[in-house]
Amino acid sequence: MTQEVTNYEKIKEELLGKEFKVLDKGFVRLVDVMGSDDSIVQAARVSYGKGTKTSLEDRGLIRYLMRHKHTTPFEMVEFKFHIKLPIFIARQWIRHRTANVNEYSGRYSEMPDDFYLPDLEQIRPQSTMNKQGRGDEAFEPARAEEIRNIMQNTQKNLFSEYEDLLEKEFARELARINLPLSNYTEWYWKIDLHNLFHFLRLRIDSHAQYEIQQYGIVMADIVSKITPYAWEAFSDYGIDAIYFSKNEKAALSELLSGKNAKDLDYKSIGLSKREAREFEEKITTLINK
Amino acid sequence: MTQEVTNYEKIKEELLGKEFKVLDKGFVRLVDVMGSDDSIVQAARVSYGKGTKTSLEDRGLIRYLMRHKHTTPFEMVEFKFHIKLPIFIARQWIRHRTANVNEYSGRYSEMPDDFYLPDLEQIRPQSTMNKQGRGDEAFEPARAEEIRNIMQNTQKNLFSEYEDLLEKEFARELARINLPLSNYTEWYWKIDLHNLFHFLRLRIDSHAQYEIQQYGIVMADIVSKITPYAWEAFSDYGIDAIYFSKNEKAALSELLSGKNAKDLDYKSIGLSKREAREFEEKITTLINK
Amino acid sequence: MTQEVTNYEKIKEELLGKEFKVLDKGFVRLVDVMGSDDSIVQAARVSYGKGTKTSLEDRGLIRYLMRHKHTTPFEMVEFKFHIKLPIFIARQWIRHRTANVNEYSGRYSEMPDDFYLPDLEQIRPQSTMNKQGRGDEAFEPARAEEIRNIMQNTQKNLFSEYEDLLEKEFARELARINLPLSNYTEWYWKIDLHNLFHFLRLRIDSHAQYEIQQYGIVMADIVSKITPYAWEAFSDYGIDAIYFSKNEKAALSELLSGKNAKDLDYKSIGLSKREAREFEEKITTLINK
Amino acid sequence: MTQEVTNYEKIKEELLGKEFKVLDKGFVRLVDVMGSDDSIVQAARVSYGKGTKTSLEDRGLIRYLMRHKHTTPFEMVEFKFHIKLPIFIARQWIRHRTANVNEYSGRYSEMPDDFYLPDLEQIRPQSTMNKQGRGDEAFEPARAEEIRNIMQNTQKNLFSEYEDLLEKEFARELARINLPLSNYTEWYWKIDLHNLFHFLRLRIDSHAQYEIQQYGIVMADIVSKITPYAWEAFSDYGIDAIYFSKNEKAALSELLSGKNAKDLDYKSIGLSKREAREFEEKITTLINK
Repeated sequence: MTQEVTNYEKIKEELLGKEFKVLDKGFVRLVDVMGSDDSIVQAARVSYGKGTKTSLEDRGLIRYLMRHKHTTPFEMVEFKFHIKLPIFIARQWIRHRTANVNEYSGRYSEMPDDFYLPDLEQIRPQSTMNKQGRGDEAFEPARAEEIRNIMQNTQKNLFSEYEDLLEKEFARELARINLPLSNYTEWYWKIDLHNLFHFLRLRIDSHAQYEIQQYGIVMADIVSKITPYAWEAFSDYGIDAIYFSKNEKAALSELLSGKNAKDLDYKSIGLSKREAREFEEKITTLINK
Repeated sequence: MTQEVTNYEKIKEELLGKEFKVLDKGFVRLVDVMGSDDSIVQAARVSYGKGTKTSLEDRGLIRYLMRHKHTTPFEMVEFKFHIKLPIFIARQWIRHRTANVNEYSGRYSEMPDDFYLPDLEQIRPQSTMNKQGRGDEAFEPARAEEIRNIMQNTQKNLFSEYEDLLEKEFARELARINLPLSNYTEWYWKIDLHNLFHFLRLRIDSHAQYEIQQYGIVMADIVSKITPYAWEAFSDYGIDAIYFSKNEKAALSELLSGKNAKDLDYKSIGLSKREAREFEEKITTLINK
Repeated sequence: MTQEVTNYEKIKEELLGKEFKVLDKGFVRLVDVMGSDDSIVQAARVSYGKGTKTSLEDRGLIRYLMRHKHTTPFEMVEFKFHIKLPIFIARQWIRHRTANVNEYSGRYSEMPDDFYLPDLEQIRPQSTMNKQGRGDEAFEPARAEEIRNIMQNTQKNLFSEYEDLLEKEFARELARINLPLSNYTEWYWKIDLHNLFHFLRLRIDSHAQYEIQQYGIVMADIVSKITPYAWEAFSDYGIDAIYFSKNEKAALSELLSGKNAKDLDYKSIGLSKREAREFEEKITTLINK
Repeated sequence: MTQEVTNYEKIKEELLGKEFKVLDKGFVRLVDVMGSDDSIVQAARVSYGKGTKTSLEDRGLIRYLMRHKHTTPFEMVEFKFHIKLPIFIARQWIRHRTANVNEYSGRYSEMPDDFYLPDLEQIRPQSTMNKQGRGDEAFEPARAEEIRNIMQNTQKNLFSEYEDLLEKEFARELARINLPLSNYTEWYWKIDLHNLFHFLRLRIDSHAQYEIQQYGIVMADIVSKITPYAWEAFSDYGIDAIYFSKNEKAALSELLSGKNAKDLDYKSIGLSKREAREFEEKITTLINK
């Protein structure tokens, strides 16, 4: 135990205050943490009384809690981050309401000359499959570069216009309104582990915008070091778990009875075309595991 | 459409204000509703813009939202209930924080002479499998009756002592503290549909205490009438869905490749004994569907 | 009563669905309401039991609840608005977490060619008193016009660049990131009356940015018609109330004992220069009432 | 600074883990803290940018934030308590929703043989002024003792009946429902400083039930040691502040113009009898300061 505590303190020491770079000018910095895997166990044992102490070890208890969606003990761990991020990402992020935030104010202070400019490989056409994202294919290199140059040029002009308006003594709170959503902002963001898991599940997901995924990945790495058992349980029972709806269960049942996937009559099972495709993707992943 | 609207109004009319009995002296009464399946669709279409209007019909859109965990449109429907329930149930219920509550006050008013007395078939021994619940077997009828009589007698005595203390002019806020958790209270409880689904998922579940399940069942029935598409989607993708953890997926993968359940080496797959048992239960349900 | 109910329904009918214009291109539209002053009274009476029915009339009870900060009955009324607003206002607005939101998505759909362009009289210099706002004085008309033209021109160019990038098939979710914070968005926003009061208190306040105040004023007008007693109580005990801190109380005490404001020794009372100025402003308002 | 940090660590060390006794068998134990006055300052400075660093010292900045209701920086400090408390108090406490809780479970474990038995001086008659509390006067000593004996006896009998039911193998989740609200429970409770202030404001208040006040007082003492500047600001601008409603302001205005309190025409000012009395109490406090 002393061994472990020492180890935890060392890991914490190494992470605290360090700026982990994200995108071109952003970062994630762990400012403070309250608790560890031990705190989850400690809180759970208040609920279950003394009986649990002997029967389940720490890792097993944490996995049990996660598996059975006993979420409150995970709320007993709290993370505080300092984050620098483009405003369009901040707007997605803030939709997670169960968190505390202090953001840099463009009314009170001047906005910084920092804008998110995507890497060339992120300059991609609209996806044809997914109405809300970029596709997997690339543009012709020349076109990608052209787009990137347009973007960079605009960002430069907008900031110089902003400075010009401030020079003219125009009020900051209005001078900034023509700055673009690619402008970087900063905030302190504090959240408990249960809600952080929920945030990560949605934001690491492949349907989230690429740019917020990058923040999620860095934060997930920090979490996996501070609360390794909880992270492992969350991965196994959360991120890496698979769901089957009522109708998908019927289809799965037929497969388990030996039927061939190609012979499934999705329509009579009640799966729409889109759902049938989603189901087949799940099965393919399973079999190719 | 007019047809449907009329129908919705009729159903609402029939439900509003009606006391649906729960347990021996409790009830659920729908006081007010804001919105319907239409409101979910309406809110979703603000997010997705006009493009969606043609491509997905209402029911399909609601199912799509539920399947992909786009939960905010479900928050646009709000239910308000008047509920009479024993205090020990109220204590479980109130743990759902995303709701508004006005409860009867035992400081301000006298508590009623209403106590929950379980039916004879609920007077059951501690479960040997489940540390937190009653078992499936019954007591000897004589013992069940004996226990029920003890309980009833105590409730009678406690209320008469309470009345006696009030008679002695003892302050209400202290006179009531020896009343038991079986005493009934009442409250107005208002919640949005997304959070109500979350409440129902946990409280209709077989691990919830039997008594709160009874409230959940009655409320679920009301919800299924007011927002039938949303309820159907929630059933199919929520309540009736099944999930497999990372390690369970490995086991499932072997079954799909034709392996026999009996030949699975759970240990090397990484499933504990308890998890292996849970997995087998899932498979049994699937196959016996 | 029937009279009043009819009246309430008539007012609601008149307000529902109507677009109230705000700023140059924004609006507030009441989409739905659950409850009225009656619902507040109804919920309060659950808490207090039958005793209250005779002793306090509705208006008096609502004022009592507000005065004594019994806030939960006000949570029993729910408002749903459809709002069109510039993104920089949306960013302030969303900080109020106890609400439900569905926003237009710039990933999924094209952003509209609508940008907030301040009126000439809002084009004002930075305040010298207030680090976070515009001052009360005007620019030379020529300079104000020059600034406005710069802003308008930039908005035009940015939208045309956005269209150009979409033309090039650049993914929507990235093409929009150089659109400015003055771009309009829309959302459905649902909140209970207690939290709406909190929102209005902060956003109608003179320290809030002028543009969000305009939304607050329109919404306050709607609320005052739907729940007139609650609004009146909120005005009298909330917005129009005045606070004195511990040290200000000492100063006020001296004034009430006949001392002249000019003879107050703020330093020994413990008021800083800034606080002394704030105190004097309060007293001036009081005396000039 | 190093000096101060050392001091903070020393104070924290002294408080952490210590059981502070409350009522006859309850306690408050500080389990963990994230942050200090410094964290509030640190978060505020993210919002305001570098400008603030020189202009306002820490204490001044914290007072400024509190005075102007800039509450988010106070959310950056988090407290975790372990609390043992009677169930009727737990039911009031849990109404504060912005907190995390893990409670001892009477379904999972046996309830303890601990019941709250009021001190003789708390055994008092119903207040005649205040519908929801005990009065200031005492009972005849004999009657107080009689009541206390009745209560103690009942608690003893109820626990022995509970043990008897468990002996009969009756399921714990039902055997406990005739235990009284005076039975003690325990929980871990985690909350941020802003919401803790809100809790304390309501629960230290003289209208709160005496028993919960005792918990509030002990927690307030801990908070005042961990975050002394924030506590001082909260006292000066929160707890010890006074407010005057719109109509009270009119009355106050007349007093400041030299009118005698006895000559005020409350009716024409718009103050009801009850409000006039409340106003006079405020003025009396002010003048007797």
